[in-house]
Amino acid sequence: MADSKRAEAREADDFLRVARAGKAAAALLAPLPRAPKDAALRAIADALVSRTDEIVAANEKDVARAREAGVAEAMIDRLRLDAGRVEKIAEAVRQVADLPDPVGEVVRGSTLPNGLELRQIRVPIGVVGMIYEGRPNVTVDAAALCLKSGNVALLRGSSSAYESNTVLTAIMRDALDGTEVPKDAVQLVPGVTRDSVKHLMRARGLVDVLIPRGGASLINSVVEESIVPVIETGVGNCHVYVDAEADLDLAVEILVNSKAQRPSVCNAAETFLVHEAVAEEFVPKALRALAEAGVTVHGDPRIVELARGVDGVTVVEATEDDFRTEYLSYDIAAAVVGSLDDAVAHIRAYGSAHTDAIVTRSVGNARRFVATVDSAAIAVNASTRFTDGGEFGFGAEIGISTQKLHARGPMGLAELTSTKWVYTGEGHLRTASGTVIAGR
Amino acid sequence: MADSKRAEAREADDFLRVARAGKAAAALLAPLPRAPKDAALRAIADALVSRTDEIVAANEKDVARAREAGVAEAMIDRLRLDAGRVEKIAEAVRQVADLPDPVGEVVRGSTLPNGLELRQIRVPIGVVGMIYEGRPNVTVDAAALCLKSGNVALLRGSSSAYESNTVLTAIMRDALDGTEVPKDAVQLVPGVTRDSVKHLMRARGLVDVLIPRGGASLINSVVEESIVPVIETGVGNCHVYVDAEADLDLAVEILVNSKAQRPSVCNAAETFLVHEAVAEEFVPKALRALAEAGVTVHGDPRIVELARGVDGVTVVEATEDDFRTEYLSYDIAAAVVGSLDDAVAHIRAYGSAHTDAIVTRSVGNARRFVATVDSAAIAVNASTRFTDGGEFGFGAEIGISTQKLHARGPMGLAELTSTKWVYTGEGHLRTASGTVIAGR
Repeated sequence: MADSKRAEAREADDFLRVARAGKAAAALLAPLPRAPKDAALRAIADALVSRTDEIVAANEKDVARAREAGVAEAMIDRLRLDAGRVEKIAEAVRQVADLPDPVGEVVRGSTLPNGLELRQIRVPIGVVGMIYEGRPNVTVDAAALCLKSGNVALLRGSSSAYESNTVLTAIMRDALDGTEVPKDAVQLVPGVTRDSVKHLMRARGLVDVLIPRGGASLINSVVEESIVPVIETGVGNCHVYVDAEADLDLAVEILVNSKAQRPSVCNAAETFLVHEAVAEEFVPKALRALAEAGVTVHGDPRIVELARGVDGVTVVEATEDDFRTEYLSYDIAAAVVGSLDDAVAHIRAYGSAHTDAIVTRSVGNARRFVATVDSAAIAVNASTRFTDGGEFGFGAEIGISTQKLHARGPMGLAELTSTKWVYTGEGHLRTASGTVIAGR
Repeated sequence: MADSKRAEAREADDFLRVARAGKAAAALLAPLPRAPKDAALRAIADALVSRTDEIVAANEKDVARAREAGVAEAMIDRLRLDAGRVEKIAEAVRQVADLPDPVGEVVRGSTLPNGLELRQIRVPIGVVGMIYEGRPNVTVDAAALCLKSGNVALLRGSSSAYESNTVLTAIMRDALDGTEVPKDAVQLVPGVTRDSVKHLMRARGLVDVLIPRGGASLINSVVEESIVPVIETGVGNCHVYVDAEADLDLAVEILVNSKAQRPSVCNAAETFLVHEAVAEEFVPKALRALAEAGVTVHGDPRIVELARGVDGVTVVEATEDDFRTEYLSYDIAAAVVGSLDDAVAHIRAYGSAHTDAIVTRSVGNARRFVATVDSAAIAVNASTRFTDGGEFGFGAEIGISTQKLHARGPMGLAELTSTKWVYTGEGHLRTASGTVIAGR
């Protein structure tokens, strides 16, 4: 017991040391222009490739531990790094180096009536705490995006990838040693217990923002407990609404693509809603196509009823919970709605405000859906799968925000910045009756 | 005890009713275009003027209560409403109606290589909880800015202005009754105890953002306790740094204006720093001018030393705490620094990242100060007093954010919005090898 207390105290001390070093590094990193940051990113990419053997060796320990723990082979594959995957990670870093620097962009600017020159300039946020699960490539991706946008990255990856993350971070820090970017710009948060997350969440004043990436329970606990500002990411209970005015064949294809093209990601559809006027024609077609794609439908009573006539298709009866579920699997909930407004009401009540799609030929209905669905992204006659920083042309993505403040939807480099107002005068003084210039 | 429990439970129920009504109103208010919102604002302005007598009568009760409680006359004056002040409040509402609508602005937009039409569109945040102290005019100002930007306002004003706030809110709601804006778009949070603030802070999912406006202790407690996202406002420990290359006469005027033009506001200066190369010449001039303006200087040992030779000026010895203090009074802390970088380090260590000024003739020094001071606003050869939504040309201000996420510096109507991505296709499907159009 005394030992565990000591270990806790040591972990807290270690965290403070890391966070303070991060804050100091942020002050040096923030004013750097693009060239030294890009040089540092290229040095990281080169080091990752030249030290592939170390990475693979460390990763093998994580893989062995996962195998001993009986982790499923699909999950182990997500964890595994080989030379080809390391090369891809390095290539992604080089691509980040090739992107424009968001820092220094003048977002707004004018000369005020009193002659003050006013500029709003993009600046780094400062110290970004990343809390993530799963694949070790996120360690490098997140560090690269933070560095490019002038931010210090404090990385807290999954304990299952601890050996890999430790080596990847050490290699990145070594690579920074010969550059103008301070090596403390990239640091692993010490410790693998829940406590290390707690330290991040309490580090107001040292950490400027936390970005949790992972399952709903991780994200909810960070949102609930953190006093550091949080950007909520990624929970996607996405809908496809098939309107009375839809091209039904198009609707079937959009639905199947939204659900089944890659069911494990947050922009995959989890529910479809169909207007009652076309339900009788649409539902059998949709059920057949979904069954062919290997998807199990959890339907409301009317969907179950409509399924009766369809050969070889069975629909599970949906509970209320099904409509709240982010399956991330070959499952989808389904309901018949009486109107577009009912569809919108359903989406507002059950959705996660990530991405919701309408399929319709009607300009008016599309317009109403777009205006009244309050989600980060709305797709009109397109698959929900396009909500993605890469697809949107951001070049890279640190996550998809489902909150309304700061950033909403896919977050690229600009979303990792704040702004600063600068105004320049020549002795401008404010008085009750207006501006006066000193000495005149 | 049982009675107080019952009262608590009732207050919690009342809060939920108000918050749910707010959320429902937000869904109706968000899609409204500018015209009905402006009409509603003008109806509010007219109602305030025509019902001035009710407002003044209610306000007299607040004033009488404050007087009984022995509140200082200056504070009572801030609380007081008369016909002239009500007219000014109504006029401010009309000015908000005259401002452009931020909602619907296309922030970014392009046609993606695959033909998807992508737009990022400004939308209301939803339900805004305002927690504020002091003057009852904030009740109307905040409601007007929220309404114009399509947001529902849940108002939690000071208990000292409860009667005034209740009547002002009732009049605004009555005025909305004949308009397209739902009356629940403007609501007072029930109850006057700390509990009513607690309810707001726990209302994640019903309230989208909290904006606390008031003293540091109010703001800190909201930041610490809220699980609803918060925009931190207003604590201003602002600095004026007088560089080695400064025009010293200009510097004196900028310093005195920054401190003394209106000491009670957050953009007033609370510390000045002077480069040692010019301290001997600058400090006596500055001390004389500050003394003339009625300002007490709390100086470090070198300032105290330099004050010895100045007739009729006494400097209080500063403690470390003085450099952290937002005086909001005719007091200022002062220190001599060895370099511009030392000044920046001081500002980073003690400041609140609101507004910091440099006075210098040197382009290089101004550039370095702007790049390395990490504050919401930086003034070059200008008074700190210009950090203000009105001065910046926003037309109105809901507060000044001192945080880095979402909004930084003065917040106008645009800062009360989020965005929504909309993409429109013609059957766009995502596949591993790129976009495919359904049916082709």
